Amino acid sequence: MRAEIISIGTEILLGEIVDTNAAHIAAALPQFGIDLLYVSQVGDNPRRLEEVVGRAWGRSDYLFLTGGLGPTEDDLTRETIGKVLEEELYLDAEQERIVRGFFAGRGAATMPERNLKQAMLIPSARAIPNPRGTAPGWWVERDGKVIVMMPGPPQEMTRMWEHEVAPELERRADSILVSRTLKTTGIGEGSVDEMLSPLLKGTNPSIGIYARADGVHARISAKALTREQAWHLIRPVEEEARRILGPSIWGVDDQSLASAIGQMLEEQGLTIGLMESATGGAVGNTLTDYEGASTYFKGSIVAYTAQAKVDLGVPAETLAMHGLVSRETAEAMAQAARARLHADLGLGITGIAGGEEVEGQPPGTMHIALADADGVEYSHSRYYQGREAAKRRAVLQGLTLLRRYLMARPQGLVR
Amino acid sequence: MRAEIISIGTEILLGEIVDTNAAHIAAALPQFGIDLLYVSQVGDNPRRLEEVVGRAWGRSDYLFLTGGLGPTEDDLTRETIGKVLEEELYLDAEQERIVRGFFAGRGAATMPERNLKQAMLIPSARAIPNPRGTAPGWWVERDGKVIVMMPGPPQEMTRMWEHEVAPELERRADSILVSRTLKTTGIGEGSVDEMLSPLLKGTNPSIGIYARADGVHARISAKALTREQAWHLIRPVEEEARRILGPSIWGVDDQSLASAIGQMLEEQGLTIGLMESATGGAVGNTLTDYEGASTYFKGSIVAYTAQAKVDLGVPAETLAMHGLVSRETAEAMAQAARARLHADLGLGITGIAGGEEVEGQPPGTMHIALADADGVEYSHSRYYQGREAAKRRAVLQGLTLLRRYLMARPQGLVR
Repeated sequence: MRAEIISIGTEILLGEIVDTNAAHIAAALPQFGIDLLYVSQVGDNPRRLEEVVGRAWGRSDYLFLTGGLGPTEDDLTRETIGKVLEEELYLDAEQERIVRGFFAGRGAATMPERNLKQAMLIPSARAIPNPRGTAPGWWVERDGKVIVMMPGPPQEMTRMWEHEVAPELERRADSILVSRTLKTTGIGEGSVDEMLSPLLKGTNPSIGIYARADGVHARISAKALTREQAWHLIRPVEEEARRILGPSIWGVDDQSLASAIGQMLEEQGLTIGLMESATGGAVGNTLTDYEGASTYFKGSIVAYTAQAKVDLGVPAETLAMHGLVSRETAEAMAQAARARLHADLGLGITGIAGGEEVEGQPPGTMHIALADADGVEYSHSRYYQGREAAKRRAVLQGLTLLRRYLMARPQGLVR
Repeated sequence: MRAEIISIGTEILLGEIVDTNAAHIAAALPQFGIDLLYVSQVGDNPRRLEEVVGRAWGRSDYLFLTGGLGPTEDDLTRETIGKVLEEELYLDAEQERIVRGFFAGRGAATMPERNLKQAMLIPSARAIPNPRGTAPGWWVERDGKVIVMMPGPPQEMTRMWEHEVAPELERRADSILVSRTLKTTGIGEGSVDEMLSPLLKGTNPSIGIYARADGVHARISAKALTREQAWHLIRPVEEEARRILGPSIWGVDDQSLASAIGQMLEEQGLTIGLMESATGGAVGNTLTDYEGASTYFKGSIVAYTAQAKVDLGVPAETLAMHGLVSRETAEAMAQAARARLHADLGLGITGIAGGEEVEGQPPGTMHIALADADGVEYSHSRYYQGREAAKRRAVLQGLTLLRRYLMARPQGLVR
């Protein structure tokens, strides 16, 4: 099956929005055995839109169109599909009822008449429900080909995709591709490749190795007639890969490092407090993106000045002797965070996010320490690609130290 | 001038990376009087790549290609341009010297021979320097048309764009389009439109009104033969728009709310400290993304638990009487932040980022207070589209309260 995606809207061509819908659809298609061959973006211009959709209809089995479903004259996607397929648009009574109901439900006395456009269909189309907006999608089927038309706003598009389009594609798929991603940290891409080499020869499942911002990922993918059969193929390979990579694996699939750590803290019944300097609150911000954070996250003291560090528990002598940006200060910060926030663990980060050298150390230098009741562990890094990147890298480094600690505890998950 | 962008790489079609290069180029083209008509993404497939590049060469004046410049056999962009233009690739001695020098500079003893591919040119191409990577770009010119070929990694592409490609496009432009964006907060899109209606009739400069995450933007754009002439057209309209919108304007062009606030704090010689709860450190993280933060940002106490709030200066009675998520607690947090961090201003935020109702208030509820030596100001919001969005909205709301306060001070910028 050959597919193509067409993203419609002049605001994309003006660079005012980045088209994330195409990447969302692209990432999902392989699991249904659909090959994506082209992605295009085109503006709200009737002639060019018709040209692009017409060419796609001629050469592909599946067309995924997003955008151009609004109520204004500029929104031409429906009309364009009608023209390419030479079918007349008509007002569908059921869809009219739904669109009017959407306005009534929002307390609007009347619906602007131009919204009626959104209740139109063509004979080959059935409407796809869109509970998050007024424009239903279309599932068009003719001549053995399919056009899936979806709204442009990502929250409407992704909802329609997950609940309506993806399940239908799965029902129709001849084969299903299922993947399991193992996320590792602490070993390089080449080493992972070498360690997994006995497993890399197979073609089903196949394994791909990818270097990503949060470590090296190993993705095991299997193709089968059903989802169950695919998992059956993946399972023994996954077990073997887990045995080989062992504690380097910190998570799977969509899991983030923050949620993986959150789970471990929860399971081990531990709490944590932070004292941050150069990261300005970024570590706390990352840890609290995970829903269960309030059970283990006590807080973070962002002490940006020397005075604040001392006021909040870092000994003045440590700062005087070793400087603001030093191993000793990071360790004292970790201990102060633990004490002040009554937490089992304290994490301290001090460094230089940007600007100029401090105490002879370049921007991007980060000292990171983790304290428990018995002592302190330390880690450091030096990475500079601008201020925001330096902060992000420090967060990753801090979370990696924390994870390593949690893995090494006797009551840890793996040992 | 008609342009199109082609982003090349199978990883884009697999949804593994989002193509931000196209949006970067798209946003820049209008200023050079170049109309972007099509954007396409295509994989590393020789036949389809040739088809897409060939069609573009036939119909457009400017082609911008990114990606596919690596050293492997999959990287086909150079070969494809050669085929479409029917020109032979040759090894350029000067480029070979540069590529070899890049490896030597990184301490690599020898250059892998396959990297020689990156030193190839065709007769119609001249190399565009790429100090961030081994692959130079190509500026191809023939038959009155131009192909600009750039590397895929965004840090290499954007550097090449700003330093090499954009200046060349500006030299060649018949006319230059210059824009000034005024960013406002506190007034709706409709009101901005109405207030600026006397200015909206002109076509040069023209004004566009856009609702964005950080408020409503008014963009004034003028076209002229030179950049200076365009600014000459913009200036009186900008002055009039500034007069009308007055203190609602918080910044211009690429400025962020955090940097606008940072500037005001610096100019007014004030410092700030935060006490955050539901935002988990996100406010401090945002404020410290701005380079000068250390001159005015004292720190942030992220007190995620009731105990931490009390330990760090919120009266236990306030929590007991009014609850964790209340106006009174936000105000006490603002005062505690001010006192504990020895800051002129204290900002307190308490609320519910996600999960379930707390004390009868739904997720997304945020109470925000700002304290100075004389008293407290208060603001609240209720917005829920998931945990991360709720946190982001709270940051925006907190920064808006802070900005309003700074604007209203007698020594403020505008009054």
